[in-house]
Amino acid sequence: MASLIAPASHVPNEDAEVLLKACKGWGTNEKALISILGHRNAAQRKQIRLAYAELFQEDLVKRLESELSGDFEKAVYRLLLDPEDRDAVLANVAIRKSGDYHVIVEIACVLSSEELLAVRRAYKARYKHSLEEDLAAHTSGDTRKLLVGLVTAFRYEGDEINVRLANSEADILRDAIKDKAFNHEEVIRIVTTRSKAQLMATFNRYRDDHGSYITKDLLDEPADEFKTVLRTSIRCINNHKKYYEKILRNAIRKVGTDEDALTRVIVTRAERDLNDIKELYYKRNSVPLEQAVAKDTSGDYKDLLLALLGKED
Amino acid sequence: MASLIAPASHVPNEDAEVLLKACKGWGTNEKALISILGHRNAAQRKQIRLAYAELFQEDLVKRLESELSGDFEKAVYRLLLDPEDRDAVLANVAIRKSGDYHVIVEIACVLSSEELLAVRRAYKARYKHSLEEDLAAHTSGDTRKLLVGLVTAFRYEGDEINVRLANSEADILRDAIKDKAFNHEEVIRIVTTRSKAQLMATFNRYRDDHGSYITKDLLDEPADEFKTVLRTSIRCINNHKKYYEKILRNAIRKVGTDEDALTRVIVTRAERDLNDIKELYYKRNSVPLEQAVAKDTSGDYKDLLLALLGKED
Repeated sequence: MASLIAPASHVPNEDAEVLLKACKGWGTNEKALISILGHRNAAQRKQIRLAYAELFQEDLVKRLESELSGDFEKAVYRLLLDPEDRDAVLANVAIRKSGDYHVIVEIACVLSSEELLAVRRAYKARYKHSLEEDLAAHTSGDTRKLLVGLVTAFRYEGDEINVRLANSEADILRDAIKDKAFNHEEVIRIVTTRSKAQLMATFNRYRDDHGSYITKDLLDEPADEFKTVLRTSIRCINNHKKYYEKILRNAIRKVGTDEDALTRVIVTRAERDLNDIKELYYKRNSVPLEQAVAKDTSGDYKDLLLALLGKED
Repeated sequence: MASLIAPASHVPNEDAEVLLKACKGWGTNEKALISILGHRNAAQRKQIRLAYAELFQEDLVKRLESELSGDFEKAVYRLLLDPEDRDAVLANVAIRKSGDYHVIVEIACVLSSEELLAVRRAYKARYKHSLEEDLAAHTSGDTRKLLVGLVTAFRYEGDEINVRLANSEADILRDAIKDKAFNHEEVIRIVTTRSKAQLMATFNRYRDDHGSYITKDLLDEPADEFKTVLRTSIRCINNHKKYYEKILRNAIRKVGTDEDALTRVIVTRAERDLNDIKELYYKRNSVPLEQAVAKDTSGDYKDLLLALLGKED
């Protein structure tokens, strides 16, 4: 369930007027910004952007970029872009500061097939390259094979599964892990092409046959880049809410807080399943996520995150 | 330019009536079938199918399958499916009789990015698997890497190219060919991810620097499956009309004629660029394609192909 609280209806022109007024004169009225942007869904934010451009002949995103700064600016920017456009930007940033492929794996493995495709389309429009083209040019070896396979997949999303196949492919995965051949091309094939329902059946079968989670068995091995990407992809496919809970936990636990991760998870999940992630967070940490976020952040950035987390004004 | 001659407007219900009448009673009136199906474009054929289903509560494709036989039936069946659906069927047939990947490469490298995607969508809807999933499960090794990379690509289609990149990647290709490392992962990366415009620049640069076509240099080497797929993909990207001309030439030249190839090229290109392919054919063989086809085929099958080739009734 979504955490963000948006009104059933809104008047885009009125919202645009509020935003213009908030940006005018000395300083910016961040409270007014948050009251709008923290309480509108993606479709509504898009209408506001269009209304703003038409009324004031100005790009709202650019205007706010020039008014704001720091983590708050970044969060507002992420929020104002269409979801597929935001993910394209996140992917591009991740590719350029190579070495951390969590964001790429999330986009590839958490989104639906059509949503992933929308991101690829947005990426091409924005960067004049395909997502897989830039990703392949910035990576190499087995990590490249796995990552490119993940982002180019267009998985079947029905619930028809093949039990016999789940058995045989669970064995292939098991043999690869036993032989420490994690980069075996059959492992890459299975993880990058099978439907999520089929993979869940395979991972369950793995657990039934061998008494341990495949992600756990991968963790027992010394970490390397390929294994990290493989494990992340399995976690995102298996239970992405649990995965996001842990990203949040680590972001908050970290000395200095990882604001990029915090913003990313809250902005991208607020309209989807952030309430479920909040519930998992509370179960795991015995502290409500809102409280943990409030303790670790401050000012307008904090207020915006809390609004997205479902706090009423 | 298209070779098929379709009227600017038609009445789907009337066409459906003609088809019903053609199927009724003793025997089938193939002439009437050809007069409609050989002279309607894909959008019109779809309307006829819909009109037929609504008027007579019957699936036109199934009805014709039960009425017709042999090469004529196959051609009519290919013609009646929506283009993306037809390509999905062709891909599935090619995957199952593995070993000949021409059809897969054509779909991946000749279609536009959005058209290829439409085929992948149609494939999933029809077979409850993704195209890459079935392809990966039926292939292995380097051929698999290349083929899966080709069908999952969503290439940038603008004309912005990077000249420096064309130079450096032409060198990578050259070194790989010189070292006989055709399956080098950089070769696969370049051919499967770069835009067609960028690849053309790279292939041209290759030719300028080394005085020979890359396809020619690949041909000088002993053939194997991977190299055949690689060379086919380069030919389809470089100049697919020339490629199709050769497919037709070989299909006709073959003892017994390769009807599958003949039908495939004529049906899939009739509304696109079959006139250009006809011109290339005539230049290369000094015989008009219509004449060669008429000589090698017979009966209703011949009449349908000739209609698609642009023969007026």
